[in-house]
Amino acid sequence: MLPSIEWVDNKVKMIDQTLLPHELKFLELDDYRDVAKAIKNMNIRGAPAIGVAAAMGLALATLEFKDLPKEKFLEKMEEAANVIRSTRPTASNLFWAVDRIWKIISTCPDNPLMISELVVEESKIMAQEDVNVNKSIGKHGAELLKDGDTVLTHCNAGSLATVQYGTALAPVRAAIENGKKIQVIADETRPRLQGARLTAFELQYDKIPVKVISDTSSGLLMKLGMIDKVIVGTDRVTSDAVFNKIGTYLVALAARDNGIPFYVAAPTSTLSLEESSDDVVIEQRDSKEVSHVLGKVQIVPDGVECLNYAFDITPFNLVTGIITEDGVFSPEELLKKYKK
Amino acid sequence: MLPSIEWVDNKVKMIDQTLLPHELKFLELDDYRDVAKAIKNMNIRGAPAIGVAAAMGLALATLEFKDLPKEKFLEKMEEAANVIRSTRPTASNLFWAVDRIWKIISTCPDNPLMISELVVEESKIMAQEDVNVNKSIGKHGAELLKDGDTVLTHCNAGSLATVQYGTALAPVRAAIENGKKIQVIADETRPRLQGARLTAFELQYDKIPVKVISDTSSGLLMKLGMIDKVIVGTDRVTSDAVFNKIGTYLVALAARDNGIPFYVAAPTSTLSLEESSDDVVIEQRDSKEVSHVLGKVQIVPDGVECLNYAFDITPFNLVTGIITEDGVFSPEELLKKYKK
Repeated sequence: MLPSIEWVDNKVKMIDQTLLPHELKFLELDDYRDVAKAIKNMNIRGAPAIGVAAAMGLALATLEFKDLPKEKFLEKMEEAANVIRSTRPTASNLFWAVDRIWKIISTCPDNPLMISELVVEESKIMAQEDVNVNKSIGKHGAELLKDGDTVLTHCNAGSLATVQYGTALAPVRAAIENGKKIQVIADETRPRLQGARLTAFELQYDKIPVKVISDTSSGLLMKLGMIDKVIVGTDRVTSDAVFNKIGTYLVALAARDNGIPFYVAAPTSTLSLEESSDDVVIEQRDSKEVSHVLGKVQIVPDGVECLNYAFDITPFNLVTGIITEDGVFSPEELLKKYKK
Repeated sequence: MLPSIEWVDNKVKMIDQTLLPHELKFLELDDYRDVAKAIKNMNIRGAPAIGVAAAMGLALATLEFKDLPKEKFLEKMEEAANVIRSTRPTASNLFWAVDRIWKIISTCPDNPLMISELVVEESKIMAQEDVNVNKSIGKHGAELLKDGDTVLTHCNAGSLATVQYGTALAPVRAAIENGKKIQVIADETRPRLQGARLTAFELQYDKIPVKVISDTSSGLLMKLGMIDKVIVGTDRVTSDAVFNKIGTYLVALAARDNGIPFYVAAPTSTLSLEESSDDVVIEQRDSKEVSHVLGKVQIVPDGVECLNYAFDITPFNLVTGIITEDGVFSPEELLKKYKK
């Protein structure tokens, strides 16, 4: 299993996921602006990975500005935080990670050099925590899976969406480690095809059986009895709904209509239970992501506009359970446990 | 508006739809085997157009065999009918069209030369009938649309799916002819992208406002209030469900969840009310249609299999109304009117 992001020799090393599944290439970045670009261009993507990338981006910024006087340093860091925050407006991990780093920056009484050391350390801790959280999600989620199950997933909430091990794919990995036979069916996940490219790549890489379908197929496959469980990741859980990659809501509707359990793997860092779904701005991305598949094949006539929302909203009534690092909860239990 | 298929100088002239939206090229075929290939390869597609193509294919076969003695002629025609029937197993219009032509062949007492003339004539009549049927569907369906409506459609059930004018798009065309402002949102319709390529092409060609979305987006757009009605075509209507391009079922689920009317435009030639959905074999197509977008860009790693069912099943409880050339009917009314 490959880590999607690492801190190596004061650089951020990440897999360039836009090249997968054809080419496994790593980016080594030493400028936070490049990290921000990599988040925006989705060289790295997936809520938890984005969080760690944001933290490591800020760590790079501290290295760049550590020799400035503290006031100037703070000014520059504020700038860097804004650049990073503006990359993916729906990803709550981004804000969570920036806030966490910012707490160190703003409360630390010491000089920028010292702050920088602490921030670098914190970003590495966050990466390790992510792996630990995912292993716990795997442990709890694996109990939901039976030997022989076929699990449908949408987008990529696997190892490549996290630092390692994955969220939605963690229960699959853990169940297989426990000796169960599990098969995955991956929605291709248009427009950017993270399911076809990334989920298929990482599962094949780790020798876990996987098949790919068009996003149009999940409903029929459920009707034909070919899917036992659905597990997806999430970018943000509000008090009433799950925000995840566009198309998740349709999968959830099909699961309900066919009596199939629909689970969301959600590290508590994605919980944003103080807000409701009405409060969330859904990111709209370039029309060309739809009209030109992977930037290569034009599928829509010139002059025809495409709408490209990145996320959709799955209301709690369609969610069977939410798997956090602490256990599996119904939406009601989740609110009881985590809502302040 | 372009006719998708015509009988010209004892040849079958059709738009090669696999090249759209980039290139508008016509095929001129004088061998029924090439017509069968064109149906199978989806150079021509869409239930009504397939029916007319099948009839015209048989007409070409009669021209080829018309000088044989009657017994030999019938043998060769049986062969041709089998080749044509085997191209798209879920398309009921195919069988309907072959049966209709076969009635002439088998009941006609005259010589093959005479039969051939009658079959050619019949295939031309069927093309004209298709246009008439579509205009009637348009007239009835237009009454369902209000000035300012945005209509979502899946796949292409437009002019290009018929001889001309379309089924699902006929109400849109008719409403616009009546002076209403109507906008279309087209699902791209993976894997073969008939929505992005064909629906967008033909509507833009006829100056009807259209936007394209990924198949993953319809649910969110409905939730955001951006869609007023759904109209899709169908390949076959059984006593309990609508068979249409894979993905239709998901759209229907989203429409119900958001209280949006879901209509199916169904020429009576697509009605197959004596059978139930369990009787229907769903065509499975090549894995490469999913793994390689339009045969050009590989999106799935080598060695990962893709499942590729061509149609799905939308149960009657999700269908608001079925628009035939005779009027708009609820599923119950449809059964009452048409089921023998």
